[in-house]
Order: sequence, then C-alpha cells, then structure tokens
Amino acid sequence: MSDYSFEYFTVRFPTDQQYVAHVEINRPERLNAFIEVMWLNMAKIFNKLSSDPSVRAIVLSGAGEKAFTAGLDVKAASEGLLSSETSTDPARKAAFLRRHILEFQECITAVERCEKPIVVAMHGFSLGLAIDLSTATDVRLCSRDSKFAVKEVDIGIAADIGTLSRLPKVVGSYGWVKEIALTAREFGAEEALRVGFVNGVYDSREATVAAALKLAKLMASKSPVAVQGTKEILNYSRDHSVQDGLRYTSVWNGAALQTQDVSAALLSGLQKRVPTFEKL
Amino acid sequence: MSDYSFEYFTVRFPTDQQYVAHVEINRPERLNAFIEVMWLNMAKIFNKLSSDPSVRAIVLSGAGEKAFTAGLDVKAASEGLLSSETSTDPARKAAFLRRHILEFQECITAVERCEKPIVVAMHGFSLGLAIDLSTATDVRLCSRDSKFAVKEVDIGIAADIGTLSRLPKVVGSYGWVKEIALTAREFGAEEALRVGFVNGVYDSREATVAAALKLAKLMASKSPVAVQGTKEILNYSRDHSVQDGLRYTSVWNGAALQTQDVSAALLSGLQKRVPTFEKL
Amino acid sequence: MSDYSFEYFTVRFPTDQQYVAHVEINRPERLNAFIEVMWLNMAKIFNKLSSDPSVRAIVLSGAGEKAFTAGLDVKAASEGLLSSETSTDPARKAAFLRRHILEFQECITAVERCEKPIVVAMHGFSLGLAIDLSTATDVRLCSRDSKFAVKEVDIGIAADIGTLSRLPKVVGSYGWVKEIALTAREFGAEEALRVGFVNGVYDSREATVAAALKLAKLMASKSPVAVQGTKEILNYSRDHSVQDGLRYTSVWNGAALQTQDVSAALLSGLQKRVPTFEKL
Amino acid sequence: MSDYSFEYFTVRFPTDQQYVAHVEINRPERLNAFIEVMWLNMAKIFNKLSSDPSVRAIVLSGAGEKAFTAGLDVKAASEGLLSSETSTDPARKAAFLRRHILEFQECITAVERCEKPIVVAMHGFSLGLAIDLSTATDVRLCSRDSKFAVKEVDIGIAADIGTLSRLPKVVGSYGWVKEIALTAREFGAEEALRVGFVNGVYDSREATVAAALKLAKLMASKSPVAVQGTKEILNYSRDHSVQDGLRYTSVWNGAALQTQDVSAALLSGLQKRVPTFEKL
Amino acid sequence: MSDYSFEYFTVRFPTDQQYVAHVEINRPERLNAFIEVMWLNMAKIFNKLSSDPSVRAIVLSGAGEKAFTAGLDVKAASEGLLSSETSTDPARKAAFLRRHILEFQECITAVERCEKPIVVAMHGFSLGLAIDLSTATDVRLCSRDSKFAVKEVDIGIAADIGTLSRLPKVVGSYGWVKEIALTAREFGAEEALRVGFVNGVYDSREATVAAALKLAKLMASKSPVAVQGTKEILNYSRDHSVQDGLRYTSVWNGAALQTQDVSAALLSGLQKRVPTFEKL
Amino acid sequence: MSDYSFEYFTVRFPTDQQYVAHVEINRPERLNAFIEVMWLNMAKIFNKLSSDPSVRAIVLSGAGEKAFTAGLDVKAASEGLLSSETSTDPARKAAFLRRHILEFQECITAVERCEKPIVVAMHGFSLGLAIDLSTATDVRLCSRDSKFAVKEVDIGIAADIGTLSRLPKVVGSYGWVKEIALTAREFGAEEALRVGFVNGVYDSREATVAAALKLAKLMASKSPVAVQGTKEILNYSRDHSVQDGLRYTSVWNGAALQTQDVSAALLSGLQKRVPTFEKL
Repeated sequence: MSDYSFEYFTVRFPTDQQYVAHVEINRPERLNAFIEVMWLNMAKIFNKLSSDPSVRAIVLSGAGEKAFTAGLDVKAASEGLLSSETSTDPARKAAFLRRHILEFQECITAVERCEKPIVVAMHGFSLGLAIDLSTATDVRLCSRDSKFAVKEVDIGIAADIGTLSRLPKVVGSYGWVKEIALTAREFGAEEALRVGFVNGVYDSREATVAAALKLAKLMASKSPVAVQGTKEILNYSRDHSVQDGLRYTSVWNGAALQTQDVSAALLSGLQKRVPTFEKL
Repeated sequence: MSDYSFEYFTVRFPTDQQYVAHVEINRPERLNAFIEVMWLNMAKIFNKLSSDPSVRAIVLSGAGEKAFTAGLDVKAASEGLLSSETSTDPARKAAFLRRHILEFQECITAVERCEKPIVVAMHGFSLGLAIDLSTATDVRLCSRDSKFAVKEVDIGIAADIGTLSRLPKVVGSYGWVKEIALTAREFGAEEALRVGFVNGVYDSREATVAAALKLAKLMASKSPVAVQGTKEILNYSRDHSVQDGLRYTSVWNGAALQTQDVSAALLSGLQKRVPTFEKL
Repeated sequence: MSDYSFEYFTVRFPTDQQYVAHVEINRPERLNAFIEVMWLNMAKIFNKLSSDPSVRAIVLSGAGEKAFTAGLDVKAASEGLLSSETSTDPARKAAFLRRHILEFQECITAVERCEKPIVVAMHGFSLGLAIDLSTATDVRLCSRDSKFAVKEVDIGIAADIGTLSRLPKVVGSYGWVKEIALTAREFGAEEALRVGFVNGVYDSREATVAAALKLAKLMASKSPVAVQGTKEILNYSRDHSVQDGLRYTSVWNGAALQTQDVSAALLSGLQKRVPTFEKL
Repeated sequence: MSDYSFEYFTVRFPTDQQYVAHVEINRPERLNAFIEVMWLNMAKIFNKLSSDPSVRAIVLSGAGEKAFTAGLDVKAASEGLLSSETSTDPARKAAFLRRHILEFQECITAVERCEKPIVVAMHGFSLGLAIDLSTATDVRLCSRDSKFAVKEVDIGIAADIGTLSRLPKVVGSYGWVKEIALTAREFGAEEALRVGFVNGVYDSREATVAAALKLAKLMASKSPVAVQGTKEILNYSRDHSVQDGLRYTSVWNGAALQTQDVSAALLSGLQKRVPTFEKL
Repeated sequence: MSDYSFEYFTVRFPTDQQYVAHVEINRPERLNAFIEVMWLNMAKIFNKLSSDPSVRAIVLSGAGEKAFTAGLDVKAASEGLLSSETSTDPARKAAFLRRHILEFQECITAVERCEKPIVVAMHGFSLGLAIDLSTATDVRLCSRDSKFAVKEVDIGIAADIGTLSRLPKVVGSYGWVKEIALTAREFGAEEALRVGFVNGVYDSREATVAAALKLAKLMASKSPVAVQGTKEILNYSRDHSVQDGLRYTSVWNGAALQTQDVSAALLSGLQKRVPTFEKL
Repeated sequence: MSDYSFEYFTVRFPTDQQYVAHVEINRPERLNAFIEVMWLNMAKIFNKLSSDPSVRAIVLSGAGEKAFTAGLDVKAASEGLLSSETSTDPARKAAFLRRHILEFQECITAVERCEKPIVVAMHGFSLGLAIDLSTATDVRLCSRDSKFAVKEVDIGIAADIGTLSRLPKVVGSYGWVKEIALTAREFGAEEALRVGFVNGVYDSREATVAAALKLAKLMASKSPVAVQGTKEILNYSRDHSVQDGLRYTSVWNGAALQTQDVSAALLSGLQKRVPTFEKL
C-alpha cells in the first residue's frame, strides 16, 4: 500500500505494521481546527478504509505538537453554518440548519461505521469536535498534556455532532458527563483515565501514537472475521436490549463461524506459530 | 426575586449568585423524612422553577446537620400507602397502590423534567428516597459524613420511585448497583465518588452547599439556550439509540442555533468579557 | 434440603447458610472447560433453583485450584459445533449454526432469568465462557490470582454466548470493553475491580467463596419478595427507558406491596430482632 | 351520581346506564371549537373520571347539530399560541412554543390515560383537533353526515397534538394516513368505516350517541378489573414489542387474576344471571 | 414420515403433500378446550417440527365438527390456575400466577418461533385461546360457520396468553381490536375477513382444511431457505424499526444468499420445471 | 426548471404543475428491470430533489405500456451480486454480500428520506423491487392492469431491499403480508386497494399518472413547511412509541410554527385566495 493524502489529511501505511493504516489530521497551523472540507474528507477516508481489504486496524492522530484538534474552526463556522443570514423565516432557517447538522453528523458516523477497529491517539488541545470524533472510534489513548473539554456551551450551543449521544455510552457515568457538558470545564488526562474516557495515558504525543500503533498492530494480527464481527456486535449491542443483541449475534455468527480462520487460529495455537488470515 | 416557601421547603435566591435558586428540604426535626405533602410540594416547586425565566440553575440541599433526607417517613407510610386496609380484593388493592406509586413517581420525575440544571448537595443520612431523588438531578455532590443506602429491601419492598431505573444509568456499573440494592448496605462518600455516584466530596455540609452553589453559578453564567438544550439532549439520549439521539439533536438545534446567544458568546470570547444573555 | 448433583455440577445447601444454594462447576481435571452437557445441565439447575422456595440466594464457583473455568472446551467444540462438516450449502450450515448458538445462549440466559440473586466467585483461569457466564449473574467476586480474558477473537470468532451484549452493560465503559474484546488480552483482579467488572477481590479461592457465601447469606436474610422484585426490576430497567422502567415497577409493586413482609420487616426493625419471611 | 359541568363541558350520568358517564363538549355556537380553557378542563374531567369508582365506561360527544368539533379555534389561536409576538429570539420563541405544545399534548394524553374505556360519538364537522382527540379514545362511532379532515396543513402547520402519532396506529394503513394528512382533504363516514377509523356509522347524531351509550353500557356490565386491564395492556402493547407486551401482561395479571370478579363471573355464567362486581 | 400423536394431538404427514405436516387438536368431546397438558404438548410438537428437515410448512386445525377450540377449559382452570387457594400472601400468589402465565405464554410463543410457516384452519367455536393461538401462526383461514370471540373479559380477566399483544399487529386496526376485546362480543367469518384477521373464508371445515393444505403445499414447494428467511424477517420486523429491520435482513441474507437454491430456482425457472431443494 | 435525465431515468417539470417533479424509470425495453446503475442513479435523483427548493411534491412512474418495473434484472444479478464466485470463504462472502445489500438498501431508503412527498403511479408488471420501491414512497396509485407480487421466494431468496420491513407497516395487516410474501402469488389492483396497499385504482397507465400528478399538485399547493413536517413526523412515528412521537413533534414545531406560512395561510383562508409560500 502506498501512502496517500486528502486535503488536510494524510493516510500512511507503516511498513512495520502490516494491515495498519495511520490517518493524520493535518492542519497544525490552525491547531487542526475543522472546516467543512475536512469532515467531508474524513468521511471519504474512513469509508475507503472500511472496505480496503489490506487494512485491519486504524490509528487516528493529529499533526503538530499543540493539538489533536482544537475543534470546530469557529471563525469559519460563524461565517458559514452559524452565520445569521440565509433566510429570514425561522422555519426555513431551521430546515437549512437541520440539513447541515445531519450532513455533518453523517461524516462523524462514517468513522463509527468503519468496519475496522480504530484507535485514536490524542494530545494537547482536544476540544469540542475532538470529543465528538473520538467517541466515534473504538479505543481512546492520550498524552499526559491533553486538554479536553466539551466546549460547546461556551459558544452558546448544545453539542450536536455526537458528543451528547455517544460520550455517556462510552464512559457509563451520566453524572460526570452532565457536569462536563453543562460547564464546559477542561479536564486532563488523569481524569479522562479515571472515568474511562481514555484507556491509557502516555508521556508524549510520540509515545501515545506509538502505543496506538502497537495496539492497532495487535488487533490487526487477529482474524479479521473475528475482529470486525466483534466491533459490529458491540456497536449493535450499545443501542439494543440484551435479547436483541443475542439474536443479532446468532445470525451474524451463522455465517462468520463458517470461516476458515477458526481452524487456522486453532491450528496456529497448537503449533505455537502466528496464523495468517485471508484478506477481508 | 424574593425568597418563598412551601410547606417543608424553602426557596432562596442568593443575591450573589445571579440566576441561581436554592431549594432546601426543611423538616430537620424528622431528618427531612418525606411525607406526602412534601413530594407534592417538591413537584410544584420544580415545575415553577422550570419555567421561571429568572432561574438558570438550581441547588437542592437539606436543612439541619444530620441528614439530607432519611427517606420516606416510614411511620407515616405504614399508616397510609403501606397500610393493610382499604380493599380486600387484591386486584383492586393493586390498582389503588399502582395509582399512588405512579403519582409519587411523577413528583420525582418533575425534578428530572425541570428544564434548568440541578446540583444536589447531600450530607449525613441520605437514605432510600434520597437516592431516588438525587438520581433525578444532574450533578451530585456530598459531604464526607454522608451515609447512603438503597434502603428499601430492609422494609420488604423493591424501590419503586426511581432508584432501580435511574441509578444504574447514572453510575454505569450494574454490578455495583445490584450489590447495593440487593443488600441495602450503607456506603460512604468515598465509595460514592469512586463509582461515579457523586462528582465531588467536601468536608462539611456547608462546604458541599457552597461547592454546589459555585457549580450552579458557573452553569448559570452560560447561555441558557445552550445549557437547557444540553440537559434535554443528554436526558433524551439516555433512553434512546445513538441514531435517535443524533436525529433529535438535529431538530432541536435547527431552532436553537438561531439564537442570538451564539454571536453574544463568540463576541464576548473575542473581547474577553462576560456575555449577557436574554432570559429563558 | 439435601445436596444433589448433575453431571459436572454439584449443588450444596450449606447448613450454616439458611436459604443459600452453592453451585459448583465440577470438571477440575479439564480446568472446568465446558462441553455441551454442561451448559444444558447448568440451565436445568438454575431453572430448578429459580422456583425452589427453600432457596433465596445462590453462589456459583468452580472446583479445583486452577480455574473457575477455562471456557469452552475448544477441542470438543472443534469436533462438534465448529467442525467443518455437516452441510456443504452455506445457507443451511448457517441455519444449523444459528440454532445451536440460540440453544447455547438460552442456557446462559437461564442463569440471568433465575429469580434468585446469584453471586459468582471466580478464581484462576476465568476465560471466554467465564465472562459470558459471570455477566449473567448479579454480583461478581474474584480471587487475586484470577486471569480473565474475552478470549474468543484468538480462536477466530466473535463471542456469541453473551459477553458482547452483557459485559458493556455490566461495567458501563464501552471503551474498556472494546479494547479487551478486540485484543483478547488478559486482565487481572485489580483491573477487574477498577473497571467495575468485579465488586471485590480476595486473597484465595477459599476466601472468595467464603465472601460470596457471606454476601448470599445477607441477601437471603431479607424479604424474598423485596429481593426478587429488586433483581427483576433492575434486569428490566437495563433494557428499557426510565419511563418504561417506572411503569413496569408500578405494576410490579401493585402486587408486591401487599405482602405481609412489609409489616414483618417494619415490626422487626422496631423490635430489633431478625424478621422471618414466608417462603417464595 | 349527580351531573356536573366544567366551562364548555357537561358530564352526565344517565340513570338507565349504570356506571356510564357521558361527557359533552358544549360550545355549539362556535361549532365546539377549542380554546385553551377547554383542553385544560377536558383533562381535568378525564382525570377525575379515571379514578371515579362509580364510572366504568365513558361516552364523549359534542353538543349542537352541526359539529362534534370544528377543531382548534383558529381565531383565538392566532391571537395566542400562533401569534408572531412574544420573543424575537427564534430559540427562545421555540422554547416557548414547545412548552405550550407539550402542555396541550398532555391534555389529550389525559384522555388516553383515563383508565376507563371511552367511546366517542362524532357527527358533522369533525376536523383537526377532532381527529387528535378521537384517536386518544378507544372506540370511534360516527353519524352519516360526518365531515372529517386532518386539517392542519391548510393552516400551515403539521398536526402536533397527537394525530400524526396516533392515527396510523389506529387504522394500521400508513398509505391512507399519508394521503389524508398531506392533502387535508375531507373524508366522510363511509371512508372512515372502510379504513377502520370508525367502528360504526349511524343515521344521525342521536342514533350515534345512543349506539355509543349502548356500547359503553355493555363494557360497563363486565368486570372492571378485566376491562381496565384489557385497555391498559392494549395501550402498552401498541408501543412495545410482542415479547415486552407478554412480560408486562404476566406481571399485570399476577395481581389482577386474584380478583373475586373471576369467581363472580364464572358463577353468574353457570347460573345464567348478571354478575355484580365491586367498584374500581 | 410416519404419523405420530401426543396426548390430545395428532400429527399427520399427508402422502400427497410433500414436506407438509398437519397438526390436529384432538379433544373433540370437550370442544377441543385446552387443559395444561395440551399447551405443553403443543409446544413440544412445534419445537419438534421446527427443526424437522422433512417439514417445510404446517397446517393446524381442530378435530370434530363443532369447534376449532372453545378456548381454555374453564372448569379445569378454575380448579387449578384460577383457583383461590395456594397462598394467602397476595405478593406470593402474584409470583405463583406470574410464573404460570409466563410458562403458558412460552408454549404459545413456541408456535410463533417455529421456523416453518403455519397455516391455521379454524371452524365453529374459536374462542379465547383460539385467538391467542391463531395470532401466533402465519396465515389464518376459516369456515363460514366460525364463531370468534376474545372471550376473556366475560370470565373477569384480561387475555394474557398473547391476544392483546399479537392481535392488533395482525389486523393493524386498534379501533376494531379495542371494541372486540372490551366487549367480548362474537364476530363471524365475514367480519374476520373484512378486518384482515383471516385471509380466506370457506364453506365447511373440510374445505377450510383442504385450502390450508393447498396453501401449505404451495409454500412447501418453494426454497426452504427463502421461505424460512421470509418468515423470520417478517416476525423480526413486526417488533423493530424499519432501519433495524433492514440491518437484520442484510446480516441474514449475507449467509442465505450463498445457498444453492438461488441457482436451482433460476435454472428451473428458465427450464420451466419444478426445482428441488436440499432439506432444511 | 428544465428537465434533465440520468441513465435510465428522466426527470420532468410539468409546466402546468408548479413545484411538481415527475421522475420516470426509463428502460421500457427490459420492462424497467433494475441494474445496479439504476438504483445508484435513483438515489442521486431523490437526494437532489430532496433539497431542491423549487420542488414540493414528486411523482414516480415507469415508461412503457407493460411495466412499472419487473423488478431486479435477475439475469444481470445472477452474473453479479448473486453469482457464486468471488470468495470461497463463506464468512468473507457473507461480508461481501452484506455490504452490497446495505448499499442497495441505502438507495431505496434515499427515496424514503426525500423530504418532499412522493406519489407513485404503478401499472402492468410491478414485481419484486416494485414493492420495495413503492413502500418507500408516501402514496401508491395503480392502474387496473397492475400485476403485483413479492416475487423473491420464487428465486430462492428472502426480499432484502425493504419489502419485508416496510410493507407490513404500509398495510397494517401482517396476515395478508405473510401469505403474499411466503407464496409469491400475484395480486391485482382490486386486492391492493382492499388491503390498503394502494390508495386508488385507475383505468390506464395514463389515467394513473394523471391522478398522481393531480394529487402531487394538491400537495404542492400547501405550505411546504407544513407538508414536509407532516411527512417527517409520520415517518418518525412509524418507528417510535406515541410518547416519543409527541416529544419529537413538539421540538419540530417549536421551529416550524414560527413560519410566516401560518399567517399567509390564515389570511388567504379569510380572503378566499390561493396563498403563496416562500421556497423550501
């Protein structure tokens, strides 16, 4: 696989990490703040990786030392989506805004729908959209210097791209989420670890990215049938009752258990060697 | 705003905390134990504050040094709701009990439905109904001397006013809730903090109330459009799938993003001054 | 009650723990690994205990020093369920597999549906099926030497007997579950306690079983009407909205509050003596 | 029972129809069009009848020859709820409108929540709110001259008091509802009968009311435990899966089957006489 | 296949209807009224047929000229389930009743869960349980002399074995179901056809059974992969949103479309001959 | 607006039907059977019309005298999606199929998500995909010569593009849908009208298209704020409980009721003239 890039994004395929793709947000001069082309491109990238058979796990991080992403580029937004013009009829303006929010949400949901597991490595400013985005991935790691905040109430809005729907289900505790979201107060790496928002804290951006790549490599070494099935069933279960989750699983595994990966994995286990699996 | 009171409740408007209301349970001679008039009055108070435009955040606490509330006044209940008389036909008695439970539940739900964020400051005995009530608020703080228990199984009943439905969603961990609810064992402030039941522990009743007022003041300083939207969407998301949460948010923000608070907040941010927002 | 046994299971009624049953998985020579007869027998045992009026709480543990259970007996499975024969038509093979998965799931669900509270005491190897099984119980305890893993991706499959549906709801944190399930990495007692998977860690298998029996005894000393109602309503609430939970509770307690246990419990409280309750 | 009235409503207790209440909308000079006091009063009436033990079935009809109700009093509404004043901030105006809609919806839902079965007798103009209101009752009858329409799109709004949520579930066919609601076209008694919106068509207002009273009398002659349980379970089932419906029913009947009405009904059946049942 | 019988049931395999099983309720001397052994046996039969590869469609009918089934054997029930003895504690009696209702419901649900399509042929008295039972099948046919009623309110109970949950979803119209269930009035074949309760009306019991066998034979001539998948997805969709239905279907067909039946069916279509399909 | 076309589709803007778009499936030489490019193009067209402010209602029909559409082009499908090649690992093939089904479903769902109401005019062969497609529109009309069938079981598959999820909710009656889907039998215009699948039957293709255009014109003459809101809320309500539907409606109308269309509509009503509404 050769590396490629989309505007404000780089996609690399580390040669020592087979089946791993590394997506980097690349607008460091503006603290990786998001403008519209960026979320559209991000969706394109994750849709592409989702069906790319040479990818089995993905790392997402931000370029530059200062920020994973400072969130929405508020200056650009206040001239665009949040500007006060367009229509003078409040009902029509509401329709216009709703369509734009749905489109934006759909781009973040593309990250969640990506069939391959995603590990996000955050550092420095990780505000607003950083939370929306990272809660759509599977595992969150961060560096010790991370500064997190659900920043939206500070600009007069309720977060609408995913944080309020996904963050409580990521961490479990509604009490903590309520405080964080209603005050927009900053929290750091230690608090993020304690409440379960991140799975690990590392000393620097580099160490965090390295840990994310290592974790992704581990996931990429397993049967992709098993890994992708596990991700899908966990996502399904989040939004359904246990009985529904069990029923869905039984149908999913009706096909998945027919894979040759099971015997490959079992045999490798007995022979103490690394199994190889067909692409998916 | 001038202070007012309902039987067993005082509502104050601290002069140094603009837009903050402080509701105090006021039956200290009986450890703030609840009798029927109290839950009816509490619902009235929170319904009133919900639509009072001069209120943006609320603190709830209990008068007296010994208890936030010792829970249901069991003596009164055993002469009323839990008495063995009324009907001899079990089906008719069940109908009578069900209506009363629904009415009681509705009073606690009035706290949850209040559109303004609520910070509860608990201390001393905080048993039974204290858990039902506090899980219907948004953020829980407590003093170091707090004694919590889901006390209901000790009087032969399953908690039916909200604890069993809301507590697991507040803390995330079903394992801990099962133990606490099936044994009625007491737990203290540190355990409450560790499992995420409370967001902070303070040295005394006074310090807890002060911290709650400070937190409420911070919430009250933000755009009420943003804060009330955030509370509503988080409550909605608790009971719905992520996709449903996103759809609801897009409709909500179709109207909310048209607020003048966004430009007020953005401008204040640039000008480094405190924004003012129209009442809501 | 006299003790009895089913193939690979022993059910004991400790004489000093009234109303407590102790179920032991008994295939220590194979690390208590499960073959088909075991999950069928386990379902039979828990169905029987569910309606046995002389049982009010249950402890589940594994015989032998090395393992609670090492999970599915992979060797047996690879000759049975996971074997590559039976049908050559993938659709028919899928139907065959789906029926078997549903039947297996149903056996684990029998543990969850058991009306009496269950405390599980785990030790040593507690892999794969150990997680499926323990998340269907109410409270999890473990010894310090426990080695846990959601092992399934290592044999090429997505866990399908309950872990992916139940574990996230037990611990609350999806982030941690994703990491554990996508990597199959082992975790120990301390991590299990920190994330809320277990409620307590003890020094040895014996100490863990003793603690579980003590906890079960405590639950068994309470009103069975209250305890069984609490378990049922908590299980219902896990899969429903708060409003639905409240409605269900009001109907449940319409009958349950008519119990004589309430006055028995209240009276005993006043008289400082241990109440006795009719069987259920 | 003596008759009573609320502003714009009369509640009668026909002497020849034991246990039946007859509620009449009484503003014939304005075609029974609704103003705010009317929906507030209507909710009060149905809440009162819901727990009145001397009522077992209810008939709802409209006074005057011309209309059951012509719907919302648009003139009053355009000066009130739909007026363009109040706030100039669209987000604040949205909050104001939302609160009013919820309050209005709550009044219609009070009709649905009434524990006693309701038969509505419609005639003449039965527009807009007439549909919202009648879909919250249990059985709909109408006279041959009825003129129905989901009128809201003709005044520039989507029906928001219940029609769009309840009508499709009453008639089953979404195709017909879409046409009716998107065109606001009038439909008559025959079409209403064919699609299942009404259960019967009668020659005149008088004949319709008489048929409704007869049907209500029949319902009132049955065990109130059975009738009220049947209504509640059907309402619950509308919004839940079959499995959930079955589970709820099992809990409901755990109490209800203990009624003495069962033996009273069985005995009367054997003795060919009319059973009498205790009040509920 | 040779015919077999269970107490009160006969299972025949008509020689001229390949892959069709005919289940007959056989207690004509008591109008096929159900006692406990009958619902337990019925569940056993349908569980057996569900996984019997030589069965592709099933007909269910009642022996004797007078009744499909007159419903629950009330005399037996009043001495058993509905008797007033057992426990004097209403909460314990409620638990006892609830367990029995759940067990009974589970037997009817076994009919719904049967993977093969079921056509029921009703005639004569088809009361109470006849409705519960027939709504758990797939297609309902009846003879002109059928007498239907949701009879339960006449014996003082709300129908709890399935009618109130399933009937509204079978016919679509809640209005008609409310009338029928709240009055217990009888309805005939023509009304049943008009509201969609039955799919066809025939002149006699014999003609109805013959039509059911013909319909079952037609279903049995199709690909069993396609037919069983269609039944399962329709049952799933009844209780889920359209989006959930689509997602479930996509997983189901991921395996099912790999069947050799597709090419067999396509080839037969081109060659104008009857396809043969492997057993399932 | 000038007409345009996509491969196999024509989009016209009838000059005498302001705000109405007419989409025609245009592959009459193959009975309008669908190949992959067609569903992709259809999604593009409806996405475009959804946000085109000069369109307020849409008619969908098929070119040629013989068929609305004969469904999936089975010959093309059997060389593509349904071919037996690609992968030999059943789990990987299942993943491949699932992705294709989801993509195909998404194209049909684009029709349902189109914000403008859609009237479909069917004639002649309207098989398989014709049902999937038409159930994603709002109102169905057909000519007397229509031949409908849920054809999928005849080619060995369960319908997976929408019919099994949407058709039961369109017609209400599960009984009829089960028969139709499990037998693949043809049904005609009269039966389609009787069960509520179509809203009207016309004498010819031309008459059906004319009626559809007339109906669309009527919808297009109403306030687009009201019409689009009505469609959205009805679609939402189909998949949610009544309480959820009411809550969603209250938020939607918080913005929508602020439209100037309300006063425009009211004023026009008083002045007996046709209102004009701003684009949306």
